[in-house]
Amino acid sequence: MDVRYINPFLNATMNVIKTMAFLDIQPGKPFLKKDHLALGDVTGIIGLTGDVKGSLSFTLNIEMVKAIMKNMLGEEIDDVTADARDAVGELTNMISGDARRMLQQEGLNLSAAIPTIVSGKNHTIKHMINGPIIVIPFTSEGGGQAMVEVSLQ
Amino acid sequence: MDVRYINPFLNATMNVIKTMAFLDIQPGKPFLKKDHLALGDVTGIIGLTGDVKGSLSFTLNIEMVKAIMKNMLGEEIDDVTADARDAVGELTNMISGDARRMLQQEGLNLSAAIPTIVSGKNHTIKHMINGPIIVIPFTSEGGGQAMVEVSLQ
Repeated sequence: MDVRYINPFLNATMNVIKTMAFLDIQPGKPFLKKDHLALGDVTGIIGLTGDVKGSLSFTLNIEMVKAIMKNMLGEEIDDVTADARDAVGELTNMISGDARRMLQQEGLNLSAAIPTIVSGKNHTIKHMINGPIIVIPFTSEGGGQAMVEVSLQ
Repeated sequence: MDVRYINPFLNATMNVIKTMAFLDIQPGKPFLKKDHLALGDVTGIIGLTGDVKGSLSFTLNIEMVKAIMKNMLGEEIDDVTADARDAVGELTNMISGDARRMLQQEGLNLSAAIPTIVSGKNHTIKHMINGPIIVIPFTSEGGGQAMVEVSLQ
């Protein structure tokens, strides 16, 4: 995967979370995924087609979900609610849209499928691709953690 | 969602499982999904784009996964292994391919994204769509259960 394609996903995630949830998240250093473990409690997944095929996942731990729900909807939650799943789905859609807009400027045209949201403690996510999977980690105050994983064939 | 689009997914699933895992699975009556609960232990998810956007998920319980792994690879497993995740990803890809071939004959052209595989006890799957989600249930001998969920916008 071309390294030029990493920043659009990193920037899109920060933009969307800042704009929608008024939350500053700090990106860590992107790395190559070596196993299939997602470290979160909710994941939004969106398939990509077009110039290349791929998949994008956005995995959050409960602390990050709580902070987003409080800021975005004024809801105090203890667990992953139906509203929280919807919010993660919408955010995943918007991250995909914002990143695709930036990738288009790099000459890469992608279409997005319908997002799917997975919730469940300790679920694992695997992208079925023969090639590198880039993981971009994020943290927020109060123990919030999230990861964007991108694979493009 | 047009009912003509249900049978391709039903038939594709039976064909693929029969051909690849030499396993006869019995379809139940397709129904509309009312909640987001998946009743299985592994799920393959694949995004669809083209004439319409959508998503397909294939969720299996451990009994169905065990039967498939035994028949397909001669492996006796007690839990969802890395090989089992790969197998579910491949099967999901093939179900998508076979169904898309049949849908093309109905005049509906779809492209598939890269499959993603989720594993974890009691995980739930939600398709982020404003419209019906069709669930096609399947059973096999020995308590095997699987569900194909399809949403097309």
